[in-house]
Amino acid sequence: MLPEPAPPEIRLEAVLHALADPVRLLIVRALADGHQEMSCIAFDLPVTKSTTTHHFRVLREAGVIRQHRRGTSRMSTLRRDDLAALFPGLLDSVLTGAARQALRLPRH
Amino acid sequence: MLPEPAPPEIRLEAVLHALADPVRLLIVRALADGHQEMSCIAFDLPVTKSTTTHHFRVLREAGVIRQHRRGTSRMSTLRRDDLAALFPGLLDSVLTGAARQALRLPRH
Repeated sequence: MLPEPAPPEIRLEAVLHALADPVRLLIVRALADGHQEMSCIAFDLPVTKSTTTHHFRVLREAGVIRQHRRGTSRMSTLRRDDLAALFPGLLDSVLTGAARQALRLPRH
Repeated sequence: MLPEPAPPEIRLEAVLHALADPVRLLIVRALADGHQEMSCIAFDLPVTKSTTTHHFRVLREAGVIRQHRRGTSRMSTLRRDDLAALFPGLLDSVLTGAARQALRLPRH
């Protein structure tokens, strides 16, 4: 498992910052939809692999996702329970808001 | 009234970015508690007046607050209805999470 903050170390400001980026929002939405493998999600992102790796690290260090290695891949999961315990309703409202915005805005 | 985005122009990423700062979170919590006058809130913030002005502008340009002049003061209000229509539950979950975190963390 890659290094991550324990729940008491997770800061609201860091979580909001991690979510305040269109690519990272796409990653979080993909994870919420059941995608777990980084290389799989990266396939659909409009950025390079190293940028993708950076975005996953920001999410992990903020406490939004958990990552572990499997062979040459990295598997990622949302820390839904930890986030729900610390900040009830936050992740769900961000996911709902992102889905509504994606319907509302032209694809860019 | 100072310039602000119309509701269709408000972006989730910009709202999250605006909220992803400890001073701006303090401002939003103060506004949610009924404080409206910028100079009144600024009195309690651990930063200079020009930094405070900057933080209010970030919040306004993201669509989180509305500001209008009254004499030499600026009055600020949360755009609760606009945000609730675009991103249901988001502002409330951020306010709840910030209040819980303030209880959990030592004052800094």
